[in-house]
Amino acid sequence: MLPAETESYTPNKWALILEGLTNAQRLKLWPLIDQSLEGAILYEMRDDARQQLLSVLTSEELEDAVKSSSDNEVVEILTALPQKLVAKLINKLSPQSQSNVESSLSYDEEQVGRYANSDVYTVKHNTSIEDALDEIRQSDLTDYSGNYIVLDDESHYVGEVSINDLLNAEGVTLVQAIAEKSDDNILDTLSLMEASNLIKNSNRPTLPILTDAGKFVGEFSMGDALSIFQHHYEAQVAHMGQVSDEDLFAPIFTSARRRALWLGINLITAFLASAVIGIFDKVLIEVVALAVLMPIVASMGGITGSQTLTLTIRGLATGQLNTANYRALRDKELSVAAVNAVVWAVIVAAMTIFWFDNYLLSVILSVAMVVNMLVAALSGIIIPMVLDKNGIDPALAGSVILTTVTDVVGFFVFLGSATIIFMS
Amino acid sequence: MLPAETESYTPNKWALILEGLTNAQRLKLWPLIDQSLEGAILYEMRDDARQQLLSVLTSEELEDAVKSSSDNEVVEILTALPQKLVAKLINKLSPQSQSNVESSLSYDEEQVGRYANSDVYTVKHNTSIEDALDEIRQSDLTDYSGNYIVLDDESHYVGEVSINDLLNAEGVTLVQAIAEKSDDNILDTLSLMEASNLIKNSNRPTLPILTDAGKFVGEFSMGDALSIFQHHYEAQVAHMGQVSDEDLFAPIFTSARRRALWLGINLITAFLASAVIGIFDKVLIEVVALAVLMPIVASMGGITGSQTLTLTIRGLATGQLNTANYRALRDKELSVAAVNAVVWAVIVAAMTIFWFDNYLLSVILSVAMVVNMLVAALSGIIIPMVLDKNGIDPALAGSVILTTVTDVVGFFVFLGSATIIFMS
Repeated sequence: MLPAETESYTPNKWALILEGLTNAQRLKLWPLIDQSLEGAILYEMRDDARQQLLSVLTSEELEDAVKSSSDNEVVEILTALPQKLVAKLINKLSPQSQSNVESSLSYDEEQVGRYANSDVYTVKHNTSIEDALDEIRQSDLTDYSGNYIVLDDESHYVGEVSINDLLNAEGVTLVQAIAEKSDDNILDTLSLMEASNLIKNSNRPTLPILTDAGKFVGEFSMGDALSIFQHHYEAQVAHMGQVSDEDLFAPIFTSARRRALWLGINLITAFLASAVIGIFDKVLIEVVALAVLMPIVASMGGITGSQTLTLTIRGLATGQLNTANYRALRDKELSVAAVNAVVWAVIVAAMTIFWFDNYLLSVILSVAMVVNMLVAALSGIIIPMVLDKNGIDPALAGSVILTTVTDVVGFFVFLGSATIIFMS
Repeated sequence: MLPAETESYTPNKWALILEGLTNAQRLKLWPLIDQSLEGAILYEMRDDARQQLLSVLTSEELEDAVKSSSDNEVVEILTALPQKLVAKLINKLSPQSQSNVESSLSYDEEQVGRYANSDVYTVKHNTSIEDALDEIRQSDLTDYSGNYIVLDDESHYVGEVSINDLLNAEGVTLVQAIAEKSDDNILDTLSLMEASNLIKNSNRPTLPILTDAGKFVGEFSMGDALSIFQHHYEAQVAHMGQVSDEDLFAPIFTSARRRALWLGINLITAFLASAVIGIFDKVLIEVVALAVLMPIVASMGGITGSQTLTLTIRGLATGQLNTANYRALRDKELSVAAVNAVVWAVIVAAMTIFWFDNYLLSVILSVAMVVNMLVAALSGIIIPMVLDKNGIDPALAGSVILTTVTDVVGFFVFLGSATIIFMS
């Protein structure tokens, strides 16, 4: 039995609780949760956690969850299941739901049509105003506060009417005469992020999703957009931390396999840096202080590059940055890097003299640091611009390429100039 | 003159365009933009870009912008201005706006009350249903699709009525008899993120913001929540990239000064790592391959730690992670790190033998890597948990502390064990 206070828990709250449990614990809790909430809970869960939970439920439990779900929730559940189960579960749905779900699944996972909410109150275009008002009065949708979508006989979007429009209609008989066609609508094949930006800019709580022939597919809401933004940013933060957007309690080997990819890429970078250091082994034996100080050059370049990279990636993602203003940004970022390079080079030089009492070493270190910081700032702009132009997400690959550049350049310039000066 | 197509630009589009310009270009474009949009454009701009633009406008231009702004927009503009200008501009507002703006400014920047939209259609509790319907019919709010907020004589929130409720009301005369008090409302002193989560979970397009005495302050919308989420995540991404959430074209010295902080903190970390390397300078002279390979130990630990840290920070921020399940996460993360540590240690050992033909060196390297990756995973949980408990945002400070740990431990274990084995 669950404590009494859990009766008031929302699906979102349950989703969070389940995400904070291991799969074994989830299996124990699941049968105790009110069945009517199951679909909504699965819908609210993060992708990977939902997939983990679904993978351990029995097929009876899956059927129960699907039975209690709205069409939208069913689509999210089916997406996480193997093809064989999907066909089986779709057969258990009502014919109307089957058709809605199959229409959703005909879009791919990145298209907004897949997430259209078809559970919307609509009005036929040739209904009389009197009948429309009567229908609304008798409907159980007393809480419904949006516009009513007006459709023709083939489900084409004709326009929208508000209850006020209906009440104020004078001298007309049919709904279509007062339906206003809004310019704000979403094409069903748009990407989720584009659709989310559209609704955000429209300042309306919902927008109709239409096919390019003008058929009404369903609605997309501000709440949907909020979830999509959150998902998008959580994935971006995860990638910056060099991890996939994974379940907190994903199975150990699943998790290890996914992370191994990032570690492997990093190892290539690290070996590349080692190879550069290896070229200069003779000067390292001669002047061991170089080995002591070389991480400073690489890491100051790394931070400088990361700062510019972060701003550039955001600029590209939001649309602030384009080919027209990237030169201005490049010049500004180089100037910022130059200011900081000079300031910190002086400080680092002073510390090196204090530590090693070696003026030549301190000059080599500070010059190498300045060079690396300037190269880093330049790379922080060029790398994401080039990746973006080639259709690769800069948030995914930008950081590891940048680190490779700042490590290799940092070690090469520092140890290379030391070789010229100390070994000649 | 602006091209004709700009006439259809939304404030959001203008905000993006302005964010992509330097201050000098912004100054040229600003006077050409339709003055009635200025307030909305400033409202949509990111904080730092807005501040930069406002800092270069003349006081006449500021006055014009404020005149064309809603009360909410005025608040955002005033927040970015020096105190002296604020007082002057408030005096130019209508008495009603003055009172709204001053009420907003009495909250601090993190409280939702500051962002309450007071421009809402409300109904007095003792209005007759007939009068309420007449008022709504005659209002110019024909596009308004929300519930109507019912207030008593002292502006206390009594409940809400939909137009349907009003139409279906039978046998009652006053609005208060059918007003339904919703449990979903937002306390005015809540933080923005808490308020955003509340509205997201409520699935309603707007929620009323109330004082703890029940006075109606204004409304908070799903669109507001969307902007706040976006702002929150953009700031987090910026901090992960070790930069402030700054304007793309912030002035060079402003930008350099802000970034210097991150560079300075990083320099301390780098010098700490250098100091550890310095302890072992004798073994480095003896076995120069150690200097070549040591970045590998540090960087593989760094990535492992970053992966766990990222998951832990997200878990803490969303509420998935708490004191009840952190042990389970710790055990899982240690296991994941152990699996990857062993796998990659074998690969690294093989590459080292191939490169240096030195079995002892390859054993030292792989053991040090395993130890550092395990310490990194543990630190990736403990550091953010401890920071969070002490009220420090783990997203801000977690990464730099973690890097310090993985650098210091990595170099210490690798060079320390090499000293014991090669120097004895």
